Amino acid sequence: MGKRIHNFNPGPAALPLPVLEEIQGEFLDYKGSGMSITEVSHRSAWFEEVINDAKVRVKRLLGCGEDYEVLFIQGGASLQFSMVPMNLLPDDQVADYVNTGSWSAKAIKEAQILAKKVRVVASSEDRDFTYIPKNIDFNEDAAYVHITSNNTIRGTQWSRYPDTGTLPLVSDLSSDIMGRPMDLTSFGLIYAGAQKNLGPAGVTLVVIRRDMLDRVPDNLPTMLRYTTFSAKNSMFNTPPCFAIYVVQLVLKWLEETVGGLAKMEKINKEKAALIYNYLDKSDFYRGTADKEDRSMMNVTFRLAEQSLEQIFVEEALANDLGGLKGHRSVGGCRASLYNATVLEAVEALVSFMTDFERRYG
Amino acid sequence: MGKRIHNFNPGPAALPLPVLEEIQGEFLDYKGSGMSITEVSHRSAWFEEVINDAKVRVKRLLGCGEDYEVLFIQGGASLQFSMVPMNLLPDDQVADYVNTGSWSAKAIKEAQILAKKVRVVASSEDRDFTYIPKNIDFNEDAAYVHITSNNTIRGTQWSRYPDTGTLPLVSDLSSDIMGRPMDLTSFGLIYAGAQKNLGPAGVTLVVIRRDMLDRVPDNLPTMLRYTTFSAKNSMFNTPPCFAIYVVQLVLKWLEETVGGLAKMEKINKEKAALIYNYLDKSDFYRGTADKEDRSMMNVTFRLAEQSLEQIFVEEALANDLGGLKGHRSVGGCRASLYNATVLEAVEALVSFMTDFERRYG
Repeated sequence: MGKRIHNFNPGPAALPLPVLEEIQGEFLDYKGSGMSITEVSHRSAWFEEVINDAKVRVKRLLGCGEDYEVLFIQGGASLQFSMVPMNLLPDDQVADYVNTGSWSAKAIKEAQILAKKVRVVASSEDRDFTYIPKNIDFNEDAAYVHITSNNTIRGTQWSRYPDTGTLPLVSDLSSDIMGRPMDLTSFGLIYAGAQKNLGPAGVTLVVIRRDMLDRVPDNLPTMLRYTTFSAKNSMFNTPPCFAIYVVQLVLKWLEETVGGLAKMEKINKEKAALIYNYLDKSDFYRGTADKEDRSMMNVTFRLAEQSLEQIFVEEALANDLGGLKGHRSVGGCRASLYNATVLEAVEALVSFMTDFERRYG
Repeated sequence: MGKRIHNFNPGPAALPLPVLEEIQGEFLDYKGSGMSITEVSHRSAWFEEVINDAKVRVKRLLGCGEDYEVLFIQGGASLQFSMVPMNLLPDDQVADYVNTGSWSAKAIKEAQILAKKVRVVASSEDRDFTYIPKNIDFNEDAAYVHITSNNTIRGTQWSRYPDTGTLPLVSDLSSDIMGRPMDLTSFGLIYAGAQKNLGPAGVTLVVIRRDMLDRVPDNLPTMLRYTTFSAKNSMFNTPPCFAIYVVQLVLKWLEETVGGLAKMEKINKEKAALIYNYLDKSDFYRGTADKEDRSMMNVTFRLAEQSLEQIFVEEALANDLGGLKGHRSVGGCRASLYNATVLEAVEALVSFMTDFERRYG
């Protein structure tokens, strides 16, 4: 089957090997249809079963009830930065945004491009986004409160979501959705590009509480209205079938192989602890995020001797450990430990890091 | 490899078997990367090569020069119905639209939702969209002229594009792009959902003449501006990598196996002639579109005895001929003969039709 490396890519990222093998095995003949999954009609029973099963699994994994709708939309989280305020923020109201880094900033910028009223109620920019703001005062008239659940670039993550009272939370969960159980109760909408924890690039999962749909204005373009997707089972037009199919298989793997999000979280904590414990003991490496706010998904670190970082990344790749370069906007190193990255991969990485430190430290 | 049927689906549709086999073969280890194509970074050399090669092949196949940009966008043609007027039609100008059926009507509707000024300068609605309007007077102040190159539902196709003088043509080519050579000179923009002639669902090809980019307003959401895609090589955010990869392989197949669009057109004409000649001889079947305007891509027909149509579709499927049901809005039968549908499939279909007529006629 060719070589397989340990993949620490920040997204697109590793997918579970059993899922990849299942796709490969049935790629020319999907369940006896005589067609590839890429060739069947989205109106066929084959694909209806795929999308409906994916929706049921999302609801079961997230523990959300009938008051939530599961949508599959194209355009990535970047399009959601616009769709959220277009759909949920009337021109005469204001939304509260928390700025924890690049992705939050982009969400704020897109709301502003639409000439919507946005308040940045908290920011961790004063310390290079290395922490998550605490004790935030939200405005009681906010249409919603927007946060970014996990910052892939700076390696921070909300360990507990803020208490917004009755204000609906809206969150970008692109890089940590399904990495741990969550209580959706206070959320009006969550969105996540699939390409980190859920599947390949090309589809965005949106889960929206039904009452939020009442806010959607009639005069938006059809493809930019959440109500179009809720009314048409995400198939007003041809959906990104292959991406949704892979998401369905990943959700099935999460439920039936991993055993659900509590078990997934346990594994993810174990993986993250393995690296963080090593970083905390070392003077050679240094984690960049505050301990209490660091991410289970993206471990960002520097080498004390920064000139060694490029060598580190190159030697790692030569040892079949890929994707360890930090985001180009901040440099350094980063190991993304999404759901599909197995414990053995992290063990191999820590073993390499130990050896590298021994040789260069 | 399992069973393979003859696939006449209207979209998602048949893909070339050698392309499917290539995808399957390298699915766990893309070109020695040790990762699936779904797992490599869109910023990696592997994917850069994919998208850049796809762009070069689009330009070579369409014979367009340096004054055109090739973009890959999500959201399908349905999102282009909005993006075209958003980007290219200033509020104080008017655009001319030709209405040749459902897809044209949707394009017109989306422009109107944006409160843009639209003139429907010609329509074939008077005869159920069974023909293409001729001798149209376009307005010399039109910002652009919008047409739908091929109507999948009614089985009509522009055999020659209208002469719009210096007015830029904008066309939805979702269902016939790359089915024949075309002269792009008079086009300001063309767009095509990939899922018929180019690849899987989940990516839309847009080819835009550079001067059209000057019209793009600054205050559009980032993901809805053509300039975002032209400036960032279609990778402002994570693109639909897998869909673009399949498109690249289909384009490669078109160039290297088929031998280019002139050869593709020859094959497509041969396929279409096989069915149309049979329909024209038969009193049992009846083509629905005017002869001079009928589509090479979608052959729409009725049975004289319409109560037999369901039996026809079911028996065809039992004979491994799939996807022959007409669009749910018009009923009847339809054989979609996109590029990947081989001549042998059409021969098998005509043979089945002959046999069916013998048994039920």
